Amino acid sequence: MTLRVFNVLGREKQDFIPVEPGRVNMYVCGPTVQDYAHIGHAKTYANFDIIVRWLRYSGWDVLYVQNITDVGHLLDSGEDRILKKARQLAAGPMQIVEQYTRAYFEDMDALGVERPDISPRASGHIPEQIAMIESLLEKGYAYVVDGNVYFDVRSYAEYGKLSNRRLDEQEAGRREDIREEKRNPEDFALWKKAEPEHILRWNSPWGVGFPGWHIECSAMSGKYLGQTFDIHGGGIDNIFPHNECEIAQSEAAHGAPFANYWLLTGTLLVPDADGIPVKMSKSLGNFLTLRDALKRWRAEAIRMFMFSAHYSNPVVFHEEALDSALRGWERLYGAARLVRTVLRGAPEGDAGNAVLAEVEKVRADFAAAMDDDFNAPIALSALQTFTREVNTLLNSGAEVGRAVLEQVDAVYRDLGGRVLGLIPEDEAAGGSAVREEGLIRLLVDLRQTARANRDWATSDRIRDDLAALGVVLEDRSDGTVWKVN
Amino acid sequence: MTLRVFNVLGREKQDFIPVEPGRVNMYVCGPTVQDYAHIGHAKTYANFDIIVRWLRYSGWDVLYVQNITDVGHLLDSGEDRILKKARQLAAGPMQIVEQYTRAYFEDMDALGVERPDISPRASGHIPEQIAMIESLLEKGYAYVVDGNVYFDVRSYAEYGKLSNRRLDEQEAGRREDIREEKRNPEDFALWKKAEPEHILRWNSPWGVGFPGWHIECSAMSGKYLGQTFDIHGGGIDNIFPHNECEIAQSEAAHGAPFANYWLLTGTLLVPDADGIPVKMSKSLGNFLTLRDALKRWRAEAIRMFMFSAHYSNPVVFHEEALDSALRGWERLYGAARLVRTVLRGAPEGDAGNAVLAEVEKVRADFAAAMDDDFNAPIALSALQTFTREVNTLLNSGAEVGRAVLEQVDAVYRDLGGRVLGLIPEDEAAGGSAVREEGLIRLLVDLRQTARANRDWATSDRIRDDLAALGVVLEDRSDGTVWKVN
Repeated sequence: MTLRVFNVLGREKQDFIPVEPGRVNMYVCGPTVQDYAHIGHAKTYANFDIIVRWLRYSGWDVLYVQNITDVGHLLDSGEDRILKKARQLAAGPMQIVEQYTRAYFEDMDALGVERPDISPRASGHIPEQIAMIESLLEKGYAYVVDGNVYFDVRSYAEYGKLSNRRLDEQEAGRREDIREEKRNPEDFALWKKAEPEHILRWNSPWGVGFPGWHIECSAMSGKYLGQTFDIHGGGIDNIFPHNECEIAQSEAAHGAPFANYWLLTGTLLVPDADGIPVKMSKSLGNFLTLRDALKRWRAEAIRMFMFSAHYSNPVVFHEEALDSALRGWERLYGAARLVRTVLRGAPEGDAGNAVLAEVEKVRADFAAAMDDDFNAPIALSALQTFTREVNTLLNSGAEVGRAVLEQVDAVYRDLGGRVLGLIPEDEAAGGSAVREEGLIRLLVDLRQTARANRDWATSDRIRDDLAALGVVLEDRSDGTVWKVN
Repeated sequence: MTLRVFNVLGREKQDFIPVEPGRVNMYVCGPTVQDYAHIGHAKTYANFDIIVRWLRYSGWDVLYVQNITDVGHLLDSGEDRILKKARQLAAGPMQIVEQYTRAYFEDMDALGVERPDISPRASGHIPEQIAMIESLLEKGYAYVVDGNVYFDVRSYAEYGKLSNRRLDEQEAGRREDIREEKRNPEDFALWKKAEPEHILRWNSPWGVGFPGWHIECSAMSGKYLGQTFDIHGGGIDNIFPHNECEIAQSEAAHGAPFANYWLLTGTLLVPDADGIPVKMSKSLGNFLTLRDALKRWRAEAIRMFMFSAHYSNPVVFHEEALDSALRGWERLYGAARLVRTVLRGAPEGDAGNAVLAEVEKVRADFAAAMDDDFNAPIALSALQTFTREVNTLLNSGAEVGRAVLEQVDAVYRDLGGRVLGLIPEDEAAGGSAVREEGLIRLLVDLRQTARANRDWATSDRIRDDLAALGVVLEDRSDGTVWKVN
């Protein structure tokens, strides 16, 4: 099957042709580590997580680089805050940056987002950024004014090709000062002179300063992925000016195409007081960190919600949608667990092998959906359709042989687990989270036995002690489910 | 109470006088991230962990910097291996470095070692290293030969003051090439010319190359802690040449003292085939990673073992010692849990308040030990003596009031938990590990009830299902204990 992707550069769905056969070199703009990741970040990185997981699952050799912005954009936008917390030269901002970098990875780990192969930090690549700026100056794409270096957007004819903005309709970027010293208002800073109050500062051929925001992504992607690489990802909100500036800098400096395919995720919106979906912002009071969301919903429910729309679409985040995603996940995981339970006592043989046609179908449908621009909602719905067939079979009372159940189980492990990160690999071995799952299940089963024996004291004790441990049980007609707070 | 520390620089115990009142700026040489951390690393970082924890607990404002060596020493010693795994320019070595950096933090987290405030990476501080080398050249402490820069050890009169080596008795450092081009064989490289096969390389005033091993610690400690700071830590094995070179570079470049106090940890040894304690090495087959050790013993047992000797002493690692440390920890934690259990049903009042004298004594003894050069084994033994008194009291059948038990409980939380990292803060709230503990305890209690009711089916089911989840029960005369595999 051919992988096809919607390329924002050119706005069309194209066959994916890698630079090197079998390999995918991929760069995704990472977080600015000045605060906790919010659920909008979670959407972007969960979307790219299953893109990478699917590519690897289907045999591609992926090298995934995602940067950490700890200077540049951070200094532009958050320095006041950092200065306030700063304790002494250099240590202050770096302590804050370290704290939020760790928090970022902790939160993404908790969401089941696999780590990038390389997470380069902007502050750790100052020489590479300076070298790139020197090259742009040599080639006449940039100019120096009083310790600042600017990119001359009119020197690069294709400026605007990603965002489809023509120069004459552009406003000056909000983050760029409209300075008299710039040749054009749209020119953006490659290097900024450090004012006395700037803490993070480096020597450069143009004096003491720090890099502009955009140059880091060009320098680090070039270093680790080469001048021309396959996929550049990020959130759609950064298409202008950030992504546009990356392209201009990289192609001007290298004289070679930058990323061949641009995949950008749609924005996560939240309803305002009137129910109108708007972007999250602290001033609107609609800001939710991933950390807080994970206290309320388990990671798989958040992932289910994120995968309910195509990655390029916006989604509206509200509690009912999350609760509904949780119920959807419980149905999926419930079936996967039931298969594993039945499998433990299953007879040898291939009784019930009519369902193998469904196994084949779900694998084919899932692959077709994911190879069609990573269409996760369609892939997920194939898995849900399959789950209904599985439930029908297992509830029919018909005997199902081990050989058949193993193939059903493998669908959940491969597509639900390895690709979507929704089904834990193993409940009995490995990590503590898996053991916790098993311990709770054992207690729920013991309580079931106690209830069957009308031993209400034991049944209540288990429920109450579990509640004290943050595990809330809910008895439903189809069994007992639990939620871990 | 005055804090006193044994200063390796001068070989005497001294009153600790900080550069700035109330503050401790501390630097500890971190790992070279080319492999998993072994239990020798675990000793060093667990030792410094309780030093930092004690300083903070007793009111000091600590800034703790620990570097990550991902270039320099790594390139000296591990490049063959990295080159073999390398996939493409720059990405190969950085992928390996990222993998082991993550593994390092995962393993230290698992051991309960709190993160440093800043973990600067050598590859992320090339400009700072170059600036320092430039300063050494300007001041005449270094010289350039064919793209290499060397520190001239004879230009710095105090070279050897930490390790007490006189230049005329020194061999050339093993890691330094004996090159004709050096003025003295002891001179060490500040910057090395990159040979064509070197992957990680940067521009410098002396050509394309990479920093020598030692300069990173001088550059990064200077950046984040200032020219003169309070404590420099590390393992005794690095006293020469590494620590000695750090001092020479920093004091020569800054014309100011480097670290005021040097605290170095003793080596972890393992018995060889004849039972003779030797250093770990892969060729001897006596190499144990922390990751593997944690599969065998729980983190607290490993910490107990590490704290059984003063940080500056060597320890010999063998299985019996770890098993014995585990039993010691179980006694300690058993008492702490018993106190919490009794506390839940305790009557109001201060019955049993005679034990408050023991509370006062253990706090005083513990503090005296830790303020005397962080003497953890003495501090731990004070806690163990206290535990015997607590067990005697609780087993006496005498009533103990809530007010008294709360103070006993606070000893375990403060000294056993916050300082030594041996007693979990809370069994019912918070992290998953704590919940797991609670779930297992509930199951053990339910099994106890089942046994009392001669309900062997339920009792066996709980034992067998727990075993399948990796939790092994052992029934002893004093109750049931468990071990998590």
